[in-house]
Amino acid sequence: MPELRKDPITGRWVIIATDRAKRPVDFVREKVEIRGSGFCPFCYGNESKTPPEIQAYRPDGSPKDSPGWSLRVVPNKFPALGIEGTLNRQGEGLYDKMNGIGAHEVIIETPDHKATMATMPVSQVESVLWAYRDRIIDLKKDRRFRYILIFKNHGEAAGASLEHTHSQLIALPVIPKRVQEELDGSREYYHYKERCIFCDIIRQEQDSGVRVIAENEDFISLSPFAPRFPFEMWITPKVHQSAFVESSKTEFERLAFMLKDMLQRLDKTLDRPAYNFVVHTSPVPENAHDYYHWHIEIMPKLTKLAGFEWGTGFYINPTPPEEAAKFLREAAIPAPVPVPA
Amino acid sequence: MPELRKDPITGRWVIIATDRAKRPVDFVREKVEIRGSGFCPFCYGNESKTPPEIQAYRPDGSPKDSPGWSLRVVPNKFPALGIEGTLNRQGEGLYDKMNGIGAHEVIIETPDHKATMATMPVSQVESVLWAYRDRIIDLKKDRRFRYILIFKNHGEAAGASLEHTHSQLIALPVIPKRVQEELDGSREYYHYKERCIFCDIIRQEQDSGVRVIAENEDFISLSPFAPRFPFEMWITPKVHQSAFVESSKTEFERLAFMLKDMLQRLDKTLDRPAYNFVVHTSPVPENAHDYYHWHIEIMPKLTKLAGFEWGTGFYINPTPPEEAAKFLREAAIPAPVPVPA
Repeated sequence: MPELRKDPITGRWVIIATDRAKRPVDFVREKVEIRGSGFCPFCYGNESKTPPEIQAYRPDGSPKDSPGWSLRVVPNKFPALGIEGTLNRQGEGLYDKMNGIGAHEVIIETPDHKATMATMPVSQVESVLWAYRDRIIDLKKDRRFRYILIFKNHGEAAGASLEHTHSQLIALPVIPKRVQEELDGSREYYHYKERCIFCDIIRQEQDSGVRVIAENEDFISLSPFAPRFPFEMWITPKVHQSAFVESSKTEFERLAFMLKDMLQRLDKTLDRPAYNFVVHTSPVPENAHDYYHWHIEIMPKLTKLAGFEWGTGFYINPTPPEEAAKFLREAAIPAPVPVPA
Repeated sequence: MPELRKDPITGRWVIIATDRAKRPVDFVREKVEIRGSGFCPFCYGNESKTPPEIQAYRPDGSPKDSPGWSLRVVPNKFPALGIEGTLNRQGEGLYDKMNGIGAHEVIIETPDHKATMATMPVSQVESVLWAYRDRIIDLKKDRRFRYILIFKNHGEAAGASLEHTHSQLIALPVIPKRVQEELDGSREYYHYKERCIFCDIIRQEQDSGVRVIAENEDFISLSPFAPRFPFEMWITPKVHQSAFVESSKTEFERLAFMLKDMLQRLDKTLDRPAYNFVVHTSPVPENAHDYYHWHIEIMPKLTKLAGFEWGTGFYINPTPPEEAAKFLREAAIPAPVPVPA
């Protein structure tokens, strides 16, 4: 008999298949392979093919928009939103609209075309996290923005149009609905219990252990109780923290380690699947909140039955998270670089 | 400059691209073609390959589970939920779950393997609507269910695993989140205005005309103001009605006409795309409500950038609904059977 489970934060029910649960080998999909053929605007020497860089890490002090960088942030060439102009909210009868003001940036994570976040050095992953932080801190100053969203599409099936590894940032004048639902749900829980729901979840998961994938000093990785997608994972700080940008140097080191570790486990368990991840953090201005707790959600792209879910918000997940966690926990990955103590 | 638009019912913001708007030819996808090769459990003579039928329309009075039917309803062979047992709600620490009680049925719309809802006679489409109604009325008696959801996946890209045209029904012990959001949003509007938001939308759309695709005596088809998907369409009764099953005989005739007409326009405009549709109606027990208004949402499957949207609830729609409505309105489709007056 399948099980209906409710996500405690957003209240969304999902159907978890328990009979005939799908194991990693049961998912038919294309492996993400980096071909390296053709022209790549994100490789050394092609800096002029992207819009001028917003920021870059250049250990050799090389000039702007030239080779020598270790990480580069550029505006998206085909932005979903435009950066110029004044925010203009208006009605149209009973409808509400505003002009599409926002920022849409691309974080080119490494000059190495063949690397992925799972294969690059952990120090490079850390560098990517610093770039996320730098960009959020810079864009927070712009009073037009209400939310800054960091996300990554890995593989064509997850919506990546270029294979050279990159993340994206969208700064929005509104809070995205999924984030708003989390904010509302966790605020309501806090109001009732005077505790953060994420902190309570972490404690309960540590006690039971069945959905824990890994832990280090500062971070824990979980298969959530009511995941929408098979092998979905959350990485979150163990001690209450509402905003990603508040992380310390040591925390970013440990997060880089944890993120690389999870992506390696994903590659190993599911043979290099396409995936998306999103960083869910407090809205700007990022005040410290007692009720919200930032986290990263990693969603492998294994199933394609999307239309029904889109139309109903009702998800059928063929792999119980307890089994997914077991597969991911037991994945034999290369001996990790020691976690900074 | 793109535009941010808010869905007035659910409060979801979407980004509508206005520059470089995608026209029908700009979407790369596979055409849905019915190959008719291989074994089909939904064809005449193979009735024993499905679970025993729940209901069938048999104009010739032929026996159960034999050929001769014009429409057949069977349990899904691989149900997402199980029909047997008592609903058992329980907690697990701070989590909530229940056993997966529900019904999952398949409506085989016609014995004609080559037909689609766009090509079958309008009387057959009407027959399908009657089957939806019959099954909802039967399942409403089961006190364990809170919502009965009718949906259709057309084409492999939309999640259909068999090409023989069919719809599905899932009866659930909970209300799906997307429906709950519509109920909450329209209740709130009613509380404020003492009018149904859908009725107000219909009046405003009729006045402006730019997003209206077609109208008959009882139904209107619209491109919604803030659609998530390019060429998304809504069909809804023009006079307030909260429950699909309350429709009269004449209304079902006119709805069949409108539904077939819309699917023909979709086929013509986008060259037979995969699509999903869902019937959104009041929860069971289906009381007449002043605030909710039933409707059908048709969502063509044209884009595959799903992961980001899944993670954020934020949609980027490359085709403004005003342009989509114009293409659909002007599609040259076969001279329709006259609408019943």
